[in-house]
Amino acid sequence: MGRLVVLLPLLLLVAAWASGDEVYTCNGTQLLSAELLAEIRSYAPVVQSIVDYVIQGPERNRTYEELAKFVDRFGARISGSQNLENSIDYMVELLGRQGLDSVYTERVAVPHWVRGNESAWIVRPRMQRLNMLGLGGSVGTPPGGIIAPVLVVRSFQELHSNVSKARGKVVVFDEDFSSYARTVLYRENGAAEAERVGAVAALVRSVTPFSIGSPHTGWMNYPNGEPRIPCAAITVEDAQLLRRLQNRGIEVYVHLIMDAKNLPLTASRNTIAELRGTTKSEELVLVSGHLDSWDVGQGAMDDGGGAFISWRALALLRRLGLRPRRTLRALLWTGEEEGVWGGRAYYERHGIHDRGRLSLVMESDLGTFRPLGLRLAAADPRARCMAAQVMRLFEAINATRLTLGADGPDIQPWVDAGVPGASLDTENKEYFYFHHTDGDSMTVEDPTNLDLCTAFWAATAYVFADLSERLPRP
Amino acid sequence: MGRLVVLLPLLLLVAAWASGDEVYTCNGTQLLSAELLAEIRSYAPVVQSIVDYVIQGPERNRTYEELAKFVDRFGARISGSQNLENSIDYMVELLGRQGLDSVYTERVAVPHWVRGNESAWIVRPRMQRLNMLGLGGSVGTPPGGIIAPVLVVRSFQELHSNVSKARGKVVVFDEDFSSYARTVLYRENGAAEAERVGAVAALVRSVTPFSIGSPHTGWMNYPNGEPRIPCAAITVEDAQLLRRLQNRGIEVYVHLIMDAKNLPLTASRNTIAELRGTTKSEELVLVSGHLDSWDVGQGAMDDGGGAFISWRALALLRRLGLRPRRTLRALLWTGEEEGVWGGRAYYERHGIHDRGRLSLVMESDLGTFRPLGLRLAAADPRARCMAAQVMRLFEAINATRLTLGADGPDIQPWVDAGVPGASLDTENKEYFYFHHTDGDSMTVEDPTNLDLCTAFWAATAYVFADLSERLPRP
Repeated sequence: MGRLVVLLPLLLLVAAWASGDEVYTCNGTQLLSAELLAEIRSYAPVVQSIVDYVIQGPERNRTYEELAKFVDRFGARISGSQNLENSIDYMVELLGRQGLDSVYTERVAVPHWVRGNESAWIVRPRMQRLNMLGLGGSVGTPPGGIIAPVLVVRSFQELHSNVSKARGKVVVFDEDFSSYARTVLYRENGAAEAERVGAVAALVRSVTPFSIGSPHTGWMNYPNGEPRIPCAAITVEDAQLLRRLQNRGIEVYVHLIMDAKNLPLTASRNTIAELRGTTKSEELVLVSGHLDSWDVGQGAMDDGGGAFISWRALALLRRLGLRPRRTLRALLWTGEEEGVWGGRAYYERHGIHDRGRLSLVMESDLGTFRPLGLRLAAADPRARCMAAQVMRLFEAINATRLTLGADGPDIQPWVDAGVPGASLDTENKEYFYFHHTDGDSMTVEDPTNLDLCTAFWAATAYVFADLSERLPRP
Repeated sequence: MGRLVVLLPLLLLVAAWASGDEVYTCNGTQLLSAELLAEIRSYAPVVQSIVDYVIQGPERNRTYEELAKFVDRFGARISGSQNLENSIDYMVELLGRQGLDSVYTERVAVPHWVRGNESAWIVRPRMQRLNMLGLGGSVGTPPGGIIAPVLVVRSFQELHSNVSKARGKVVVFDEDFSSYARTVLYRENGAAEAERVGAVAALVRSVTPFSIGSPHTGWMNYPNGEPRIPCAAITVEDAQLLRRLQNRGIEVYVHLIMDAKNLPLTASRNTIAELRGTTKSEELVLVSGHLDSWDVGQGAMDDGGGAFISWRALALLRRLGLRPRRTLRALLWTGEEEGVWGGRAYYERHGIHDRGRLSLVMESDLGTFRPLGLRLAAADPRARCMAAQVMRLFEAINATRLTLGADGPDIQPWVDAGVPGASLDTENKEYFYFHHTDGDSMTVEDPTNLDLCTAFWAATAYVFADLSERLPRP
């Protein structure tokens, strides 16, 4: 499969992440019937019972404990690795014990990139090791590495203004963090832009607003899918150091060694579980997160938490005997980090058949911190207004916010096809501190917040799956 | 020199860091004469002129720029290294160009610990690399390293309750961060305690309230100065992982390899500069920070900033033509990180002669963030009250707080001898996030905050050096 295919969903994802933070409110009585408003309000007791069951009942701390058991056992779960497949086997077995109506997997071809040994050093004017992580998809260096002077730029624009200085250099992108959406373009396209002007390698400042000497990996793209020059992430601290040295007229050489390899696509699986609906079982609400992670840290935050609140939502509704009218389907995606391979394959296979049946597609992939509400992508004002009314059911846990614009890379194809989509909105100001680093671990997760997210996710999915009326589309 | 000697100042330092945060206020008129109060108030214009000169004048951003030039050129400056000595030569030359009355160095013997290659892995139940930093002073492992099962404890008490399980193990201290003073005891004494119960190595959770997968190094002590088992810091994340695995009954083996070596004491230097006083030049006010750092990061925060605001204070007073009655002496200590070698040597050499001549000893070693005021160690209530009145001169920059208990490892011997001591109090809530890590870099420093600290430090030193009355002692 061509690599260009990978680029598009990433850009769509970026567009979603860049979308506004407009908090949506509506006066329900103008758009919705009194009956529908009353019906939504009537879910208050069941929402409360779900919340109580998770927060105070026998399920207390359970999401945290299950997630910890899982990520401690498998650690990082990168696409293409046997470890990811073993972790999927584990999940199939675990889901099989939850009393759900069906648990199965669907095969997906995913990239198989292997980091190998790697290092980067400043070798002139003095020796200094650079904390680094090769970017996923990058080629390696020749054996023995690359030694070359650096050219530091702050932006693609600055690179284009200095084309004559770039040939034979290691281009260092020292871009300031503005938003993830804008800043990640340097990680994704830095190598391509540097190669175009004759650079021999690219180093990109890690995409984060805060650093303690930590490099952040992530996927990158080559122009026309043709691997060319190697590319790695360095720390904010070192990118700024290199810029200061250049500003003082000091010529800096770096030595970059990367054994990274792109191996052939390999077989992985999306993991799927269902709680069949009662009277409208052909209609669906989908809750999801991705099981795969980067090859650093534990992938507890990105996206163990999202995957675990999703299957836990179904499991605890089952235990509470709460079966909604529509079928609830939990999707644990694979191959998300390399360009949404699981999500795209799923839509390619099921889009035409299922897009008319789906009331709502939900994904959590921006952390499971204290829940604030939902982010919603829905074109129809009535759908927005229904969601805003549903959010009012969560006053007890202070998670009533409805914001427009869903952040779900794996559900984006459905959203693009006009299916209402929602993502979990949490107090995730520090999300990008840990994103794609060794700091993505259970230390970031909090048992109570995971309980709150689980309860919110389960109750939200239940209400949307049970309402007499589906979320409308234009 | 015996290693026991090292332990005592560290404990004193810890005691200082643990001391309270009592904000001191006084009604000046009860303790101080109207003349003295008026005299202190009369410094308002000169304080303002210093602040204006630094903040808005030609000195703007200069401390940041000089500090960046220095730490970017030399990077980490660990005791015993040629790099530290080269950086001291640079400082002597730089200070020589400031028009001060004398610039000289004094020889100090300092430890020479060399990290060498090092790594740690979980090797059972699965392979996982542990981010780690050997602790300063630690012995290395045998060639090929140590492979042993781990015993995780939360405290010395828990270790003592599990003595029978410790023999032959790698003891992991997973202590929670409460305060630096309390928590650092595990880094300092963890190996000693573990060795006593038959452990083969110790791993200590990094001493920090916040982590992004970053290990924090620091000095450690052996019982009776006899090197025994190796000891390294691991991350908060990994210490918690190891504890969770143990709690689930999973036996974990780690492989620790450290080439660390303790070489003979080597010659270093304290760097000293003076601005001679006018009418009371035999009396002194000392301002200081340490030039040495750990062998990771750049040592910009710990303690480049403290050292640089200290010499900059003298340099800019000189440029402003402000020569106080008493002599101002800037001390840039060496060998602080390994147990205050420069500070102790200086007191041993000059204590008897100078302790009666010193009005105030000042040190900045807890960061140069936004200044809040001073922390003061002074037994005489009149001294405290004078300092509180001096702080009122800094209302314009909102740095008027006087807190009791100075945090200055290098000045502690003077404080113990009854000399009033003061340390810089800044908005340093994140100090221990970066402390002794690769994150200790110019990225932590802010040009405006460094200007404010420089102005505050210079003006404070000036006023105390110029007041007609010395700070009284009991």
